[in-house]
Amino acid sequence: MSILIRGGTVVNADREYSADVLCADGKIIAVGENLRTPASAEIIDAHGQYVMPGGIDPHTHMQLPFMGTVTADDFFTGTAAGLAGGTTSIIDFVIPNPQQSLMEAYQTWRGWAEKSAADYSFHVAITWWDDTVHADMGKLVRDCGVNSFKHFMAYKNAIMADDEILVKSFTRALELGAMPTVHAENGELVFTLQQKLLAQGMAGPEAHPLSRPPAVEGEAANRAIAIANVLNTPVYIVHVSCMESLEAITRARSKGQRVFGEVLAGHLTIDDSVYRNPDFDIAAGHVMSPPFRSKEHQAALWQGLQSGNLHTTATDHCTFCDTQKAAGKNDFTKIPNGCGGVEERMAVIWDTGVNSGRLTPSEFVKVTSTNAAQIFNIYPRKGIIAVGADADIVVWDPSATRTISAKTQFAKGGFNVFEGRTVRGVPTHTLSGGKLVFKEGDLRAVAGDGKHVDRPAFSPMFDALKQMAKVTAPHKIQRS
Amino acid sequence: MSILIRGGTVVNADREYSADVLCADGKIIAVGENLRTPASAEIIDAHGQYVMPGGIDPHTHMQLPFMGTVTADDFFTGTAAGLAGGTTSIIDFVIPNPQQSLMEAYQTWRGWAEKSAADYSFHVAITWWDDTVHADMGKLVRDCGVNSFKHFMAYKNAIMADDEILVKSFTRALELGAMPTVHAENGELVFTLQQKLLAQGMAGPEAHPLSRPPAVEGEAANRAIAIANVLNTPVYIVHVSCMESLEAITRARSKGQRVFGEVLAGHLTIDDSVYRNPDFDIAAGHVMSPPFRSKEHQAALWQGLQSGNLHTTATDHCTFCDTQKAAGKNDFTKIPNGCGGVEERMAVIWDTGVNSGRLTPSEFVKVTSTNAAQIFNIYPRKGIIAVGADADIVVWDPSATRTISAKTQFAKGGFNVFEGRTVRGVPTHTLSGGKLVFKEGDLRAVAGDGKHVDRPAFSPMFDALKQMAKVTAPHKIQRS
Amino acid sequence: MSILIRGGTVVNADREYSADVLCADGKIIAVGENLRTPASAEIIDAHGQYVMPGGIDPHTHMQLPFMGTVTADDFFTGTAAGLAGGTTSIIDFVIPNPQQSLMEAYQTWRGWAEKSAADYSFHVAITWWDDTVHADMGKLVRDCGVNSFKHFMAYKNAIMADDEILVKSFTRALELGAMPTVHAENGELVFTLQQKLLAQGMAGPEAHPLSRPPAVEGEAANRAIAIANVLNTPVYIVHVSCMESLEAITRARSKGQRVFGEVLAGHLTIDDSVYRNPDFDIAAGHVMSPPFRSKEHQAALWQGLQSGNLHTTATDHCTFCDTQKAAGKNDFTKIPNGCGGVEERMAVIWDTGVNSGRLTPSEFVKVTSTNAAQIFNIYPRKGIIAVGADADIVVWDPSATRTISAKTQFAKGGFNVFEGRTVRGVPTHTLSGGKLVFKEGDLRAVAGDGKHVDRPAFSPMFDALKQMAKVTAPHKIQRS
Amino acid sequence: MSILIRGGTVVNADREYSADVLCADGKIIAVGENLRTPASAEIIDAHGQYVMPGGIDPHTHMQLPFMGTVTADDFFTGTAAGLAGGTTSIIDFVIPNPQQSLMEAYQTWRGWAEKSAADYSFHVAITWWDDTVHADMGKLVRDCGVNSFKHFMAYKNAIMADDEILVKSFTRALELGAMPTVHAENGELVFTLQQKLLAQGMAGPEAHPLSRPPAVEGEAANRAIAIANVLNTPVYIVHVSCMESLEAITRARSKGQRVFGEVLAGHLTIDDSVYRNPDFDIAAGHVMSPPFRSKEHQAALWQGLQSGNLHTTATDHCTFCDTQKAAGKNDFTKIPNGCGGVEERMAVIWDTGVNSGRLTPSEFVKVTSTNAAQIFNIYPRKGIIAVGADADIVVWDPSATRTISAKTQFAKGGFNVFEGRTVRGVPTHTLSGGKLVFKEGDLRAVAGDGKHVDRPAFSPMFDALKQMAKVTAPHKIQRS
Repeated sequence: MSILIRGGTVVNADREYSADVLCADGKIIAVGENLRTPASAEIIDAHGQYVMPGGIDPHTHMQLPFMGTVTADDFFTGTAAGLAGGTTSIIDFVIPNPQQSLMEAYQTWRGWAEKSAADYSFHVAITWWDDTVHADMGKLVRDCGVNSFKHFMAYKNAIMADDEILVKSFTRALELGAMPTVHAENGELVFTLQQKLLAQGMAGPEAHPLSRPPAVEGEAANRAIAIANVLNTPVYIVHVSCMESLEAITRARSKGQRVFGEVLAGHLTIDDSVYRNPDFDIAAGHVMSPPFRSKEHQAALWQGLQSGNLHTTATDHCTFCDTQKAAGKNDFTKIPNGCGGVEERMAVIWDTGVNSGRLTPSEFVKVTSTNAAQIFNIYPRKGIIAVGADADIVVWDPSATRTISAKTQFAKGGFNVFEGRTVRGVPTHTLSGGKLVFKEGDLRAVAGDGKHVDRPAFSPMFDALKQMAKVTAPHKIQRS
Repeated sequence: MSILIRGGTVVNADREYSADVLCADGKIIAVGENLRTPASAEIIDAHGQYVMPGGIDPHTHMQLPFMGTVTADDFFTGTAAGLAGGTTSIIDFVIPNPQQSLMEAYQTWRGWAEKSAADYSFHVAITWWDDTVHADMGKLVRDCGVNSFKHFMAYKNAIMADDEILVKSFTRALELGAMPTVHAENGELVFTLQQKLLAQGMAGPEAHPLSRPPAVEGEAANRAIAIANVLNTPVYIVHVSCMESLEAITRARSKGQRVFGEVLAGHLTIDDSVYRNPDFDIAAGHVMSPPFRSKEHQAALWQGLQSGNLHTTATDHCTFCDTQKAAGKNDFTKIPNGCGGVEERMAVIWDTGVNSGRLTPSEFVKVTSTNAAQIFNIYPRKGIIAVGADADIVVWDPSATRTISAKTQFAKGGFNVFEGRTVRGVPTHTLSGGKLVFKEGDLRAVAGDGKHVDRPAFSPMFDALKQMAKVTAPHKIQRS
Repeated sequence: MSILIRGGTVVNADREYSADVLCADGKIIAVGENLRTPASAEIIDAHGQYVMPGGIDPHTHMQLPFMGTVTADDFFTGTAAGLAGGTTSIIDFVIPNPQQSLMEAYQTWRGWAEKSAADYSFHVAITWWDDTVHADMGKLVRDCGVNSFKHFMAYKNAIMADDEILVKSFTRALELGAMPTVHAENGELVFTLQQKLLAQGMAGPEAHPLSRPPAVEGEAANRAIAIANVLNTPVYIVHVSCMESLEAITRARSKGQRVFGEVLAGHLTIDDSVYRNPDFDIAAGHVMSPPFRSKEHQAALWQGLQSGNLHTTATDHCTFCDTQKAAGKNDFTKIPNGCGGVEERMAVIWDTGVNSGRLTPSEFVKVTSTNAAQIFNIYPRKGIIAVGADADIVVWDPSATRTISAKTQFAKGGFNVFEGRTVRGVPTHTLSGGKLVFKEGDLRAVAGDGKHVDRPAFSPMFDALKQMAKVTAPHKIQRS
Repeated sequence: MSILIRGGTVVNADREYSADVLCADGKIIAVGENLRTPASAEIIDAHGQYVMPGGIDPHTHMQLPFMGTVTADDFFTGTAAGLAGGTTSIIDFVIPNPQQSLMEAYQTWRGWAEKSAADYSFHVAITWWDDTVHADMGKLVRDCGVNSFKHFMAYKNAIMADDEILVKSFTRALELGAMPTVHAENGELVFTLQQKLLAQGMAGPEAHPLSRPPAVEGEAANRAIAIANVLNTPVYIVHVSCMESLEAITRARSKGQRVFGEVLAGHLTIDDSVYRNPDFDIAAGHVMSPPFRSKEHQAALWQGLQSGNLHTTATDHCTFCDTQKAAGKNDFTKIPNGCGGVEERMAVIWDTGVNSGRLTPSEFVKVTSTNAAQIFNIYPRKGIIAVGADADIVVWDPSATRTISAKTQFAKGGFNVFEGRTVRGVPTHTLSGGKLVFKEGDLRAVAGDGKHVDRPAFSPMFDALKQMAKVTAPHKIQRS
């Protein structure tokens, strides 16, 4: 069975042009003007619409056990919601408990993910260190299609990685050709501020952003980047939310360092006034880390995307319902951290980014799909409309509008951080692995249709890093 | 007649992969593994070699009448030298005298360029202003395939554009969908410093860099960028040579402004000690503007390329022989400004950039070809190995070496700023418009084989600028 | 007759300490604990209060003929208002018309100033250039106590100084040991934006800030600094109002350049929403150049003061009444530019700066008095409480409050940009030249009591600049 | 007995002027023109010379037990050498072993220091943490005249303070009104690099700088500053040696943060080529941490002093002789870290700073004396020539020259990092506590003449910090 998308404007990261796109057997098999329609082909009329690579959300947490509960979306509902929004791949996280075997945790998550409706892959978190961790990193890269590892610089007394772990894990990742990624917040400072605020009687969600000010994030980002610099590894900073960490990235990049930054749709569009909402459910519903920031940070983050100092857009999709959030009613540090977004990311970024003139359609594709595919080395299988690529495609109507609401969303949790926002530019059709899974509001996601995406190690950048290490190797002085 | 390049690694800006490349009728007609060989096809064995889009040098001056003389290379010898080095397109400059009709100057240059051996196009300089200039800019864009205009902020009392001209011309360029470009040096300061140095008895070429210090360039770059910012136009800074102007670009880009930077192969690799060479011919042979800088500027320029704050690499190829340079024997301000490089650019940048690990091969393609094609809106006709693109291709042997010398160069002028430098990584074959014009040292360039490349206006970026102007339009306050 | 200020805390730029201060014959003659009271001395009880050097406002325009009218405050009312606010010296501006003799203009202003109630001095503007200007600069410095020259980079077709004038005048100032100062706005861009806004029907005062955006100021500041850098002169930027020009200063200073920045009390505390006030009189009453900016600029300006990148605080006091402002009712470019503040500067800066913890009292003294005295070389005659200094003193009650209003102000013009603001920290007594001229609300200013303050050339910084020029002088290469 | 310094130019931080200076009973008792000579007074003829506050070296290690040995200079020889160079006060360090009582360590160091020839004071290092440390910090500040604490971010497995200690100690210091100071190098990275270099067979002193690259220092400085920012404390970075940490300071200061930077005479003038000297003794003689850097860092450090982003100049005086250094003959990590300089600091900084035009004489006084006195709150007892100040004075001949050598130095250890350097500008006389202790090469230092200088807590800056904390205190949201 094949599908022909006819009459649209194909948008890739490098350009946009008019062409039909023909898909069969899960792949794109032709792109060109006036393609001949195969007999059996289903036809999608894309006149006046854009035909773009399906979105890749490189940061989600489906079915995550966290802070004593489990997120509302599992791998089926979460990936299905993504498909409704034009996102056809996610990269989720395996998060072993300290002392837990990485391989064991990895298998657990792989099991949970079997019900996914869209393609998925995993970053694996390094939350502790010993020789088995070192060994398992090797197995994961060589045998399991993992090419990235995550490090939490926050969450003291839990999964926080200190400098020693960062140094060891980054070093190991470089050997393996894998990308180190970090959640950049100084855990010691967060812990201190949390205690101080609680001691001052500041126990409500309005204290949450005060316990994680921008300086705390900027410090950690700068530190991770310095470590990567000294060890000659690349590094990827997840959910950059503020000027301070963006500036750390920008400084390093302007010196030629291979640093990458991810920004969430929420941080681009929501400000920290939400935490002062008198309704606890609303305030708590927005509790995530790093928190939403004041408006000048949003402006800066957009500039980061425009300038190429930030590369990918994600959501950190991690949904909890009101009753779960209520665990922190009397202590903001107990509110489960997380917000949704996998369903809205593409539309929110198009509306705020393309409609404002900040981004061209090609730049939109870059930051919602292509850059993630390249950085995590699954390009050109993903991230481009081209012959041979997976038929993960979104057909986008730039003039249609939609008002976002928890009432109409596909994702679970009953809360939406973009509640009430009307966006112009929405997906009309989504193809995933060559199947039409979303058509004008009708979501046809099937549990188990998603496949694990193996991500190979050693993207070309690693050759350059190796070469640089060789060229700058130290010289011994001969002494009598 | 067709040519099959077999067994190489195709390198595009987005990735590298093994594939054969088949060319016919001036175009690339197939790219893929194990392509079938057409009967008549000439075969190039590219095993162990890279197959890359031919270089685009966006800044040359062939056959330029300048400072009372004419450059040594004309459009034939200059483009032929380019082909020998893997460069298959140039963008040269039409430079009307103040008060001269733009259209007349344009026709003159077009005539001179007919003998070109490779494809060419023209930026047109705005050296004065009146209504005819305004009108001719329109004609050039609409009828003549010109989509960029050049402004000299230096050369007081000659072709210098003051702020009024910059403002008017940038405004007009935006209307037309064309790119304003600037030679960024503060002409008033250069003039003052030249007079001061001569008055101090500093008349030798060692005074040349002192008359054009980095601050002079940084100021002008910053000013052009501010003007572009206020007028909401893009801007392209030619031959960025120093930290000061790079920083101005980096600052603006990090704020989301659409600024582009070009850097010369010479500024990336040659330092200002050349001006203190006791041999006048050598010192004068390096006189160009902006001048070569001290080593820390080179390091910064490489970082600019790595970070994406600089986009294109060029040469400002503008050759004069010893006797021409001798016009400034007793007064450095009279030394004709200009150096060669069109033939060596690709190899010098590969050797210093890729062999050091600063750039991946894909990044090399980006900065030597693709970015220029995109910025000047001739992509994907140029700048990519893909079906439908012009068959402008260079086959590159990364392990072969060559020692550069004026004695063995194809370009005229008898001087080479890279004299004696041994590079690893050289072109073995160059295809231009589907013809094999350079083969292992044998240059088969034919005068007149090059064609003018029409460059259309309104690259997609202009839509975004227009959108931004609409979104930020001023609001009137109602007053009683 | 003498005055003893007893029991206060003396605050100088370097420290604060308890001491009595005794004044006689216009000078401070003793500072110490428990000073013996001379028989005839008037005693001021300063317990619980600060005793600080009288403020110096280095930027006022009293009695200025401007845009076809004359400011509301003359040298008597203006300086008297200053005394009521704790400011005991002003530096005003002589602004010759283009082609007018500098000496003639200087004499005119000296005549107008004879009625001053407080000490005064003059910057002289360089609005055109020929040999007489060059000569008159010398006379002014050598014979008239002028050590600073002002350059307007804005006001095209009127008093704008282009790069050629800046270069010539800065060069001349260096020879004379005088400080070049600039009003930094790119006049060409302002002119263009004004025409464009008017053409769009934007004729109200809300268009004023749109015609002078921060980029316009940042560009000019950067240019003036680059010119100073190349010529090895110091430079002083008046009324820095935005991040862009502050950043230009900060960059240059961090490289060791001798650049100084002035900020107005208004720019520190008032934002640009005033221009959107539906009442024309209010909107127009705030029209000055550069305009008030959005709040993030205010935050940055405070940081500039805190960090020492900005040095002095001023007002650009230049008052017009409603009927004068009404000249621009239908065309914002015709609204006379200017606002008051000489009376409120000290209190507004104390309230916003010291009460917030941004500044210590010593830092307050630095930015309201000492730095201006040092930069304009009248220290330690002014700017310090010390034996031998002029008895220009303000006694300051940090706990008293006052609500600012045009209804209660001493200055003329009937408008106050700080209207309705309640400040904590106000002057209770002002001494000027040893006379008690303001006592708890009672202003006893006397026309003609103020004296011209001769400011000598060649502050010590000029020795360092001279030394630097010597050390970095260019070397000639010997060639055969 | 009294001393009259006649006919010199007094240089203070705020200005220079001609005056005689009269000292008696350890204090300055008169400053003025043509002072009457007391009968018994010794007279120093200072015509043509500068009379400046004695230098304060805020960073020395006399008699330090370190890396298994003890430094060559004890408190007598070290302070005597200082006097010979014009330095009349030092601030040394009490460094408790982890688990050692702070009070006990403090008493030990006080005992060692009794033999000092010049005034001294102590920073106390926080090398571990428990409740007794918290308590002892209080005792030291309240009872022992300590107002600053030191934290080593390097030296893993020894005295390194991790983030938890930094946070606790900074918090405690703020309560006490004391200044936190840091040695900024990331100890984890240094440790990793040391192991890696040794594993590569890089065991010589040339590996020392490679194990502590600038990024390692920049990271730590940035982290300490972020911690101080979040906790609203001031912070002082010792021995800033590179652009990276200077930039961290500059960024924070430009945002208004109260950060202070110290730079060593050695880092200002010596580059890292010394580590590649084929003579082990010379290379090892320069081993200190942070190491000497490449020349562009020196240029930047001077700019830091000029711009006021660096405040004090010190030496980290810590001398070892050849046989001590030889402990690291086969393993660079075992070379005792430390170099001298207390004797040469003033002359080296004058020669490189004032003779080049980088600093005025007043700025020299600021960075060698006044700023240290103000930051460590002993001003105006120290750091100024004024009535009431300690009679710690250096008479400086700006035209005399001296060639520095270990052969002629007063300090012990037999090595001099400034060996062979000829400086112009040297002390001719030093007064310490009113006694003439150095006269034209004749050093008359007396063991035990130096006194401990109690430094009070809560410099005025702490009031501003307290005020800022109050103003920015968090607000609780009322929720139903």
